[in-house]
Amino acid sequence: MSIVTETPLLTRAEIWRELGQQLRVDAIRATAVTQSGHPTSAMSAADLIAVLGEKYLRYDFDRPDDPNNDHLIFSKGHASPLLYALYKAVGAISDEELLTTRLLGSPLEGHPSPALPWVDVATGSLGFGLPVGVGIALAAKTLDARPYRVWVLAGDSEMAEGSVWEAFEHAAHWRLDNLTVIIDVNRLGQSGETMHGWDVSSYVDRVRAFGWDAYAIDGHDVDAIDEAYAMATAGTGRPTAIVARTVKGKGVAAVANQPGWHGKTLADTEAAIEELGGRREIRITPSPPPSDPARRTYAAAPPALPVYELGSMKATRRAYGEALAALGDARADIVAMDGEVSNSTFSGVFAERHPERFFEMFVAEQQMIAAAIGFDVRGLKPFVSAFAAFFSRAYDFVRMAAISRASMRIAGSHAGVATGEDGPSQMALEDLAMFRAVHGSTVLYPSDANQTAQLVALAADNAGITYLRTTRADTPVIYPPEAEFRIGGSRLVHASLHDEVTIAAAGITVHEALEAARRLASEGIYVRVLDLYSVKPIDRQALLDSVTETGGRLVTVEDHWPEGGLGDAALAALADSGLSLRTVKLAVRNIPGSGRPAELLHEARIDAEAIADAVYSLIGANPW
Amino acid sequence: MSIVTETPLLTRAEIWRELGQQLRVDAIRATAVTQSGHPTSAMSAADLIAVLGEKYLRYDFDRPDDPNNDHLIFSKGHASPLLYALYKAVGAISDEELLTTRLLGSPLEGHPSPALPWVDVATGSLGFGLPVGVGIALAAKTLDARPYRVWVLAGDSEMAEGSVWEAFEHAAHWRLDNLTVIIDVNRLGQSGETMHGWDVSSYVDRVRAFGWDAYAIDGHDVDAIDEAYAMATAGTGRPTAIVARTVKGKGVAAVANQPGWHGKTLADTEAAIEELGGRREIRITPSPPPSDPARRTYAAAPPALPVYELGSMKATRRAYGEALAALGDARADIVAMDGEVSNSTFSGVFAERHPERFFEMFVAEQQMIAAAIGFDVRGLKPFVSAFAAFFSRAYDFVRMAAISRASMRIAGSHAGVATGEDGPSQMALEDLAMFRAVHGSTVLYPSDANQTAQLVALAADNAGITYLRTTRADTPVIYPPEAEFRIGGSRLVHASLHDEVTIAAAGITVHEALEAARRLASEGIYVRVLDLYSVKPIDRQALLDSVTETGGRLVTVEDHWPEGGLGDAALAALADSGLSLRTVKLAVRNIPGSGRPAELLHEARIDAEAIADAVYSLIGANPW
Repeated sequence: MSIVTETPLLTRAEIWRELGQQLRVDAIRATAVTQSGHPTSAMSAADLIAVLGEKYLRYDFDRPDDPNNDHLIFSKGHASPLLYALYKAVGAISDEELLTTRLLGSPLEGHPSPALPWVDVATGSLGFGLPVGVGIALAAKTLDARPYRVWVLAGDSEMAEGSVWEAFEHAAHWRLDNLTVIIDVNRLGQSGETMHGWDVSSYVDRVRAFGWDAYAIDGHDVDAIDEAYAMATAGTGRPTAIVARTVKGKGVAAVANQPGWHGKTLADTEAAIEELGGRREIRITPSPPPSDPARRTYAAAPPALPVYELGSMKATRRAYGEALAALGDARADIVAMDGEVSNSTFSGVFAERHPERFFEMFVAEQQMIAAAIGFDVRGLKPFVSAFAAFFSRAYDFVRMAAISRASMRIAGSHAGVATGEDGPSQMALEDLAMFRAVHGSTVLYPSDANQTAQLVALAADNAGITYLRTTRADTPVIYPPEAEFRIGGSRLVHASLHDEVTIAAAGITVHEALEAARRLASEGIYVRVLDLYSVKPIDRQALLDSVTETGGRLVTVEDHWPEGGLGDAALAALADSGLSLRTVKLAVRNIPGSGRPAELLHEARIDAEAIADAVYSLIGANPW
Repeated sequence: MSIVTETPLLTRAEIWRELGQQLRVDAIRATAVTQSGHPTSAMSAADLIAVLGEKYLRYDFDRPDDPNNDHLIFSKGHASPLLYALYKAVGAISDEELLTTRLLGSPLEGHPSPALPWVDVATGSLGFGLPVGVGIALAAKTLDARPYRVWVLAGDSEMAEGSVWEAFEHAAHWRLDNLTVIIDVNRLGQSGETMHGWDVSSYVDRVRAFGWDAYAIDGHDVDAIDEAYAMATAGTGRPTAIVARTVKGKGVAAVANQPGWHGKTLADTEAAIEELGGRREIRITPSPPPSDPARRTYAAAPPALPVYELGSMKATRRAYGEALAALGDARADIVAMDGEVSNSTFSGVFAERHPERFFEMFVAEQQMIAAAIGFDVRGLKPFVSAFAAFFSRAYDFVRMAAISRASMRIAGSHAGVATGEDGPSQMALEDLAMFRAVHGSTVLYPSDANQTAQLVALAADNAGITYLRTTRADTPVIYPPEAEFRIGGSRLVHASLHDEVTIAAAGITVHEALEAARRLASEGIYVRVLDLYSVKPIDRQALLDSVTETGGRLVTVEDHWPEGGLGDAALAALADSGLSLRTVKLAVRNIPGSGRPAELLHEARIDAEAIADAVYSLIGANPW
């Protein structure tokens, strides 16, 4: 590194101290623009970041896409003004740009986001950045096979989040000695003191018990910081936590170690800057990344997807696993992970065929999503699987993945009451709503194995969060292998010239709808069945055409609560149609118990009989 | 306790061993009925539960409502057949009832649920039961002030869930020495070995580092178990973890310690029962609960809610806190907790007035929801608050709370882009969808302070999960203090005889809609504004009447993603109306950045201008 400064005779420690003061001053200036933000949370960590940026971080800020750049993640995202001040110190942004912090349209948002090229993921939801750091470090140690390091600045408040303990557990398990977390123990949370205050040993003890190296230091002693970073980069086989006792608002007496200053700008900016010794213009150039600019290239060929015989029985969850394995055969960038249920989700088929690309994430859904983000950041194509219900455990991580512009494919098995005897805790009945309400998401719900296989392949290169809902039980293969499907598509599976009602279904209810249509036809009542396997984006035109042709009569049927799922999606698609609609929405309305799948579909009134009844009610032909 | 057995000359240890075998046999029999379930996961913990049930559990199974009964929670809910076998051994259920396990309509579901009177909460989502146990133990140590103990049977697999570490942290913090967790370290998860296998010291070290007493024992040595429980009940000021090394499938060689037997029934039931020594009919009577049958009574009077002057400015989040404090003045059963943001959610107003009923849960949203469940189980009325976005961290817990038939009130502040400069990580844009898709939930989104205050009061006795969404910024008070609101209601805030379009809004967008209506009126275009403050249940009739009167023209406008929120709710309510609808759904369609609230509402096209444009488009009167 080289240092451009007006005061070349400073020792390195003096430079660090000066740089720390500069970062404080610039963080204060950045938050003064809108009179909002978190200067005091930036000030506590300024010395930690000064030493890191000047000596240890290996990063070419002119080439953020250099594959060997270190990764720096502010898990305490509210310290963003410190990050932006660092970006200014390394010359990545100008002072003018710094002063756009939090203004409309500026990439310098209130919390870091990938609107900036040096930011891997959005942070600001506490307990998220560290698990993502684990994911990136895991990629480095495995498929990515690169020497970059991952540095995570975490807050002490966020140690209260369970997600960070999933991260501590996994980082030790995977021996990620390329990962360092710097815990900025400034004692003060937002509304009061943290649970452990300045008891740094409480953190050290916990983290060590989880298998990490951990060092307690004074977070304002630049020599101690230097020494700790040196130990962190020594390559012990264990990840390192640097537990730094710091002072929130350090350097400005009016706010230093004072409660009530979280997320508040300083009352007197000029006085604070004065107290910190005034503005500085120290410019640092971090060390370059290790020289190995070659990009990984991953073999890719069209997959030879499994095919399933029309009329045979096959669970879509099994088709998921088999298709994923086939995709893995064809493409070396496919990575899979599972929440310790790979024998249920059938990601185990992939694991057997590609063990080096399968990651057992145990029962830690948040860390699993975070690991997927890490692999995505490093250019791989993660597929993640678990029981659909348990992704609700990781909803915030999915939300943050979307804000981070990450892409991943999430397969949820055991959807709905069709799960059967295991009972409601194991049944996803809110997952369609949950995943629809994710920005830029795709929600797929195949009804047969051939359709599943194609959608798995399509998901691989689909941007954003792609959710695929599978069913536990074997269901009939209703599409020939050569049938084609697409994201945003639908399929008319049953139709005649005289249809009076459209039945919109997906997944398990397609089979119930087909059965209803057959029964009704035997009574001279004709209905069409539209397979809306792409719940989002929905095939609006096909739905509109069908409902128009059936006189505005529509039955939607879904193995899901009534809110936010297929029915709501269909109605939203027709909202501006001007059609006079007569709709019956069939969905699960009571908490199910245990039972056989067919019994539970019946009890929930989403089976063929219930569908037929809905048709009767719509056409005024109730036979009873 | 008394023991009814054919073999009265057995020592107590022999009885425990015999009872353990009986529990195994009955667990196997219970799962044989449907050939589904988890006998091997029951067998590993049978001896632990035998000693607990016979000697330590203090419970009158004839009086499950005895307020001093201990609480027994199977956090590893898949071991339900063991719990049901215990219920049989204590005479709570008959053998015939045991053999209804997992059958349609039986309260003996695949995983325990409150369909049974002795079950506090549904379990089966790993990592949920222990945090709830912490909640119940916390109630015992504080407001409930009772001597009951809380026993949690946990699996080793679920130690991978971050949520359990939130629980470990909080249990130590609150000094819950009335809580014991029994960790059944049977080494084998569902798809393979756990991360730590039989390394019991890894659990002991972690749990001790978190401030607990922890003992490693052989989970099949009844004397060791007895000794450990004796230590657990010694009252050290610390919670106790008993880390029990066990054998999955213990007692039946074909499955004992064998992989591949998770969630599978035994191939030869009769042979297994034979190997276990055959059926037994040991009947035990647990110790009675401590004698103190008096119920807590909580003072209750009608609350003197705060009133806000029409036309003044007041953030609904502030009204939430002030109303909650007033409610707390009137009723002693009101409890509040917050995720370390009480100065933002304004639950801090309650905390100041009722510090003994306010619980700081730090940044641990899952444990916060679990604590609320605990207080609910004990008859209190919890109100929970945090930034709305961060409840996505606890969505599974909310889901499980609903399946547990728990009631609580959840207030989410900082909703939508109206949050402003902090940026997207802090903005809830999926919360309406998330909370609508919870069974039996109520979703409220007030637009002014008087409305907020009334809804807070109504929420106190509302069953199920009640979600209240508040706004960060000050907004005008548009309703007089005497205006009345109700769950399921709505309010026509702007109307004339000539209205051409209905604008359905809630919360922040009510103000934008009113501004649009005023602007449009100045142009001779008349629209009505319907405040759908009760998003679920929605006021279908008022919406239908209004949209009918405005010729089917409807604009919905919400500070939320387009999916699953107000717009979808409104359209679903009109789905069977037969109306020819022309609807424009205004919602947030791009990831917002930072900016002032008004700028972000404008950029998202959910402000008055966008609403006016939507009206123009619907009536074909675009002035440009």
